[in-house]
Amino acid sequence: MSMDITFLGTGSAYPSPHRGASALVLRTEGESWLFDCGEGTQTQFMRSSLKASKITKVFISHLHGDHLFGLPGLLCTVSLNSNPQPDQPVPCVDVYGPRGLRHFVRVALELSGSQLLFPYAVHELEPSDEQCPVEGRLSPALTSSSDALHPQERPGRTVRLDPHTDCYDLIDDKRFVVKAFKLYHRVPSFGFSVEERERPGRLNTDMLKELGLKPGPLYGRLKNGESVTLDSGRVLTASEVLEPALKGRKVCVFGDCSGALGEGFRRVCQGADVLVHEATLEDGQHEKAVDHGHSTPSMAAAVALACGAHTLVLHHFSQRYKPEALRRDGEDDVTELKRQAELVLQGSSTEVILAEDFLTLPVALKKSLMH
Amino acid sequence: MSMDITFLGTGSAYPSPHRGASALVLRTEGESWLFDCGEGTQTQFMRSSLKASKITKVFISHLHGDHLFGLPGLLCTVSLNSNPQPDQPVPCVDVYGPRGLRHFVRVALELSGSQLLFPYAVHELEPSDEQCPVEGRLSPALTSSSDALHPQERPGRTVRLDPHTDCYDLIDDKRFVVKAFKLYHRVPSFGFSVEERERPGRLNTDMLKELGLKPGPLYGRLKNGESVTLDSGRVLTASEVLEPALKGRKVCVFGDCSGALGEGFRRVCQGADVLVHEATLEDGQHEKAVDHGHSTPSMAAAVALACGAHTLVLHHFSQRYKPEALRRDGEDDVTELKRQAELVLQGSSTEVILAEDFLTLPVALKKSLMH
Ligand SMILES: [Zn+2]
Ligand SMILES: [Zn+2]
Ligand SMILES: [Zn+2]
Ligand SMILES: [Zn+2]
Repeated sequence: MSMDITFLGTGSAYPSPHRGASALVLRTEGESWLFDCGEGTQTQFMRSSLKASKITKVFISHLHGDHLFGLPGLLCTVSLNSNPQPDQPVPCVDVYGPRGLRHFVRVALELSGSQLLFPYAVHELEPSDEQCPVEGRLSPALTSSSDALHPQERPGRTVRLDPHTDCYDLIDDKRFVVKAFKLYHRVPSFGFSVEERERPGRLNTDMLKELGLKPGPLYGRLKNGESVTLDSGRVLTASEVLEPALKGRKVCVFGDCSGALGEGFRRVCQGADVLVHEATLEDGQHEKAVDHGHSTPSMAAAVALACGAHTLVLHHFSQRYKPEALRRDGEDDVTELKRQAELVLQGSSTEVILAEDFLTLPVALKKSLMH
Repeated sequence: MSMDITFLGTGSAYPSPHRGASALVLRTEGESWLFDCGEGTQTQFMRSSLKASKITKVFISHLHGDHLFGLPGLLCTVSLNSNPQPDQPVPCVDVYGPRGLRHFVRVALELSGSQLLFPYAVHELEPSDEQCPVEGRLSPALTSSSDALHPQERPGRTVRLDPHTDCYDLIDDKRFVVKAFKLYHRVPSFGFSVEERERPGRLNTDMLKELGLKPGPLYGRLKNGESVTLDSGRVLTASEVLEPALKGRKVCVFGDCSGALGEGFRRVCQGADVLVHEATLEDGQHEKAVDHGHSTPSMAAAVALACGAHTLVLHHFSQRYKPEALRRDGEDDVTELKRQAELVLQGSSTEVILAEDFLTLPVALKKSLMH
């Protein structure tokens, strides 16, 4: 039940030797979920202690090259290094991202003659016109998927905005609820919220035995939260014999943006344990940042504040901001970006962290105080 | 008039931290020509002393991802870092490669919303069916370019095989003749021959002055190789007053292959100063290499021998062969590949060099012995 986030690329616009292009991995229970996949992400995996072969899901925030161009190569290399067992089903890799992603992956794999040893599916989010200036919209002709599927491609869903929640429902299973929300950028961009379901606390079996109850169907009913009437006539409520529930953790990853749209992000990012937000340029370059559809540390901090996030992680820094360890006199100081965010968050309990390539951040388990 | 070759990636299949994916640069007179562009090539440029902004031409040997997936990102980053002057025309970047390349570049740039600050054109080589197994052929539907050009795209040529020479004529200008030739691989693959034109020797002006000839049209005629009759009646031949010509240099770069097809390569690679050939696996793995459409050192050496190449450079090594400096006890030894090639070339004057990432190899000027 451990959960952590590893940053594989924290630079904006293009990969450089000191900051890879955008990519981060959320690891949980043996699975790795990749958020964005700029060029060189597969090599960043090799430089890290993570294994690209563990990837089961990929989320692409938007189609800019620094978030996308590493995806075909990553899929090919994972396949090359995979070793599927003939008698075991090979799980499908699910890829989520804006309309156009399906066509991009298909064309790249097909023209390069790439066959994969696993199936994949691309689930496309249908953007709204308000998410970018007119010139950033992709005409449907460019994203048409009338052509045949790639041999390893499985049909993907088209996910539309739920107007009631202002969100996109991506995943809803026993362990996680994943939703996307709208951002404003030069091209349609999305943020993702991953919410772990609350896990019911364990039964206090010692107490049950003291009450003379043996393991059986009654245990199951209590575990499900029901009350049971004992032979003595006593009504035993679940809360008496259940340990506190484990509260689900919440990790939110914003794509490039100069702001969120609508109410979606407020709804799904509330109380995030970790909120990852871009901070491409420092506060002093606010106008330039917004012109390019990007955020400053103050803007990111305001989002974290609005969501009551526990931790704000800044990343996607202009390549002018070298990692602190490599910075020379007179060069731009990335720690200044941290201070600018902290200024906005003064008085709140939100902590600010600057991401660097290969930083791993644990997301701790929390016991729920109420039950 | 200096000329050199720099290897930016010498690994096969995918980029790794110790060997980049395929890419090499031929530099001559301020221009850089890029041969293949695997994922991460733009970052390898930053690690080297070369500037990606100097690229004027790109040659893609075949569409496998380890030779191609870095191209869209490279074009975007060169554009981001360019600074075109408003009153000066921006030269077009010419890209050459197999049919399908135009569609790939167009789709990648369009779906990523990438605008370039320079025009580009993709000139496609029409492959022959014999260049790969049936499953490696691209159906015309996949490479259709009926869609509109990208805003910065200029119409490219379709280059067909010249059946008389078994070659593709790519460039023929005052300085260079560039031809391509057919290779056999899992997908259609090409080799490229770059031949510098012979430069006429300089006029011996001291001698002309002794003969009483002043600078003027006569000088031009002599320089052009004509004979002139002096006032004295003496016939002065050009060879009497021209210094020896500078012989053109020849550099040949083979794409991935388990062999060349037809007579094209013999015709255009004869006497190559430098012949760059893949050697993915050692001789002991001959069968596996050929099965995968690749070569061993012996196979590469046989090609160099057939062409009378002066220098054979091996590259595109399986990632199992680490650079010599990083190799640990018990790991595969890349220098063994050099010895295997040398064994075949014993008695010839062909030198063998193992490429490593960031190796730069000068191609020396030669004076012609005959004139
Ligand atoms: Zn970005
Ligand atoms: Zn972006
Ligand atoms: Zn290759
Ligand atoms: Zn290949």
